[in-house]
Amino acid sequence: MTLAVRYLSARTLDTALAEPSAPGPGEVELAPAYVGICGTDLHIFHGDMDARVSTPAVLGHEMSGRIVRVGPGVDGWAPGDAVTVMPLRWDDTCPACLKGHQHICQHLDFIGIDSPGAMQQRWTVPASTLIRLPDTLPLDRAALVEPTAVAVHDVGRAQVAEGEKVVVVGGGPVGILIALVARAAGADVRIAELSAYRRALAEESGLTAWDPAVDNVAELVREWTADAGADVAFEVSGAAAGVDTAVEVLGVRGRLCLVAIHPSPREVSLHRFFWRELTLVGARLYDRSDFEKAVTLVADGTIPAERLISKTVPLTEAPAAFQALEAGGDVMKILVDCSTENAQGAAV
Amino acid sequence: MTLAVRYLSARTLDTALAEPSAPGPGEVELAPAYVGICGTDLHIFHGDMDARVSTPAVLGHEMSGRIVRVGPGVDGWAPGDAVTVMPLRWDDTCPACLKGHQHICQHLDFIGIDSPGAMQQRWTVPASTLIRLPDTLPLDRAALVEPTAVAVHDVGRAQVAEGEKVVVVGGGPVGILIALVARAAGADVRIAELSAYRRALAEESGLTAWDPAVDNVAELVREWTADAGADVAFEVSGAAAGVDTAVEVLGVRGRLCLVAIHPSPREVSLHRFFWRELTLVGARLYDRSDFEKAVTLVADGTIPAERLISKTVPLTEAPAAFQALEAGGDVMKILVDCSTENAQGAAV
Repeated sequence: MTLAVRYLSARTLDTALAEPSAPGPGEVELAPAYVGICGTDLHIFHGDMDARVSTPAVLGHEMSGRIVRVGPGVDGWAPGDAVTVMPLRWDDTCPACLKGHQHICQHLDFIGIDSPGAMQQRWTVPASTLIRLPDTLPLDRAALVEPTAVAVHDVGRAQVAEGEKVVVVGGGPVGILIALVARAAGADVRIAELSAYRRALAEESGLTAWDPAVDNVAELVREWTADAGADVAFEVSGAAAGVDTAVEVLGVRGRLCLVAIHPSPREVSLHRFFWRELTLVGARLYDRSDFEKAVTLVADGTIPAERLISKTVPLTEAPAAFQALEAGGDVMKILVDCSTENAQGAAV
Repeated sequence: MTLAVRYLSARTLDTALAEPSAPGPGEVELAPAYVGICGTDLHIFHGDMDARVSTPAVLGHEMSGRIVRVGPGVDGWAPGDAVTVMPLRWDDTCPACLKGHQHICQHLDFIGIDSPGAMQQRWTVPASTLIRLPDTLPLDRAALVEPTAVAVHDVGRAQVAEGEKVVVVGGGPVGILIALVARAAGADVRIAELSAYRRALAEESGLTAWDPAVDNVAELVREWTADAGADVAFEVSGAAAGVDTAVEVLGVRGRLCLVAIHPSPREVSLHRFFWRELTLVGARLYDRSDFEKAVTLVADGTIPAERLISKTVPLTEAPAAFQALEAGGDVMKILVDCSTENAQGAAV
């Protein structure tokens, strides 16, 4: 029997024992090591995604771990291999897939939302989702690969180039990762973030962070760019004011990459898009090349993963960790340690 | 003495005599033949642009004509040459110019708004603004080159490609020109337009037009594209509902080209931009290559200019024509005939 963290209903998680089944054809059984708690997991926990999520639901999609068993017909993978998972299954037949955009398949199965996720001691996934991890990469740091792949995808969608001036609006985990990936691409980066804790973490990583509650971000950008405006802005805050800031800081032909989820329509200054010939580009998830780049960036230390991991809790304490995140506070990324030896009371 | 149409204050135009002065260094004096009345001219007439326009203001920037006199230092041009004008003057020193986007210079002088326009019998402009017209092109049709250059720029900004499915929301003069230019680029085009008159004109030009008051445009696009959605949408209506339609019809990775002016912020479904990885691209004015392409398209009949010209009025009747446009009705493009022989009462 193995232990799993399950979402039952709004603000209610439990841990429960389950009987692992042997991996089927094309599948592998993994032993997750570390699983990050993502903003989407919190949305589910809040009950905001009840229309989409079938309960009880095992959460988690930012993971690292090792292969335990390999199903029939799986080549190139063996027990013990260190892996992360690109948690997407597409249908290969919808118009999005036929255009080559499988990652935004019109019938996408996002593993960890639409089907069981990684926050458990054994997890069976299609071998096609596996991404190999270097043996030298500690598995706790490797849990940052998935959100780093998001950032790589976003920076790619915005086509950030060497020497460009980039503003990241919102300095949570994805925002700071975007800032780091953009800097690695040769950009000069500023972050606007309300939390002093998160600003300090950005500064410790060598980034410059502004407080939009105190600083006039648009004015600072004008000074910084000698009135030219920024080349690229990333909207990662999810707030109406964040959208306004991201539009306002851009110079002519600037690109705004929309990363955050805005469930309701937002007022947008379309006149500014017209006047300055701005571009807005939506970015969602990632593809395999983004994941492979992310592995490299985490492994080579470009992403200071150890600094971004605020806390690691055992699987049995995951429900309490969600409650703590709900209450807010000084935190960046929390990992759930799914390893058997640290899961109190679990029988394997 | 020559006659000019002047904007005095909201809803008030007059015609007045003026003494032409000799063209200065680098300038040419033109005899405008035909000048189109543009939506922007109507905005000025409504009084919406009083903060920007110095009165009395000579309107007009969609023109054709011939050179009368050439100033010192002007090479390559001679009296009698048929020309149109790209009515832009930039400073070459602002960040937009330094990035190579002179047409959206941060201190742009748009001739016909910020300085005197073409609706007069003599008009002096910098030789750098001249675009040569083929001798075979009738000058009334040539007055459509400027709005066609807008359409060429818009289709270029949207990167419309052969075989793509394109929806144009708003079938006024610019909308129908965009549709025609996109079709010439190999796209399959649909127009959504409320006016039966304008829909009929589009159909006569071989385009398919839908009535958004009766047809469910999003549903029609789903049928037309087998549920894939359109590749490109142009928002040319200026209406909130037009923005919604343009966003809704797009398939994954679709591009929305924003052409219309929306003076106030609009509610936009940013979630759709995220979910489908859409792109919004602002498009304003044109550059010289757009103008040169436009000359070709008008001259070779790709743009059926004669069909789009609803009416031609003499210069002295331009104020009444503005009043008639204000009242609405079945009209596409109205030209003002500035030629001396047709301007009643003018003394040259």
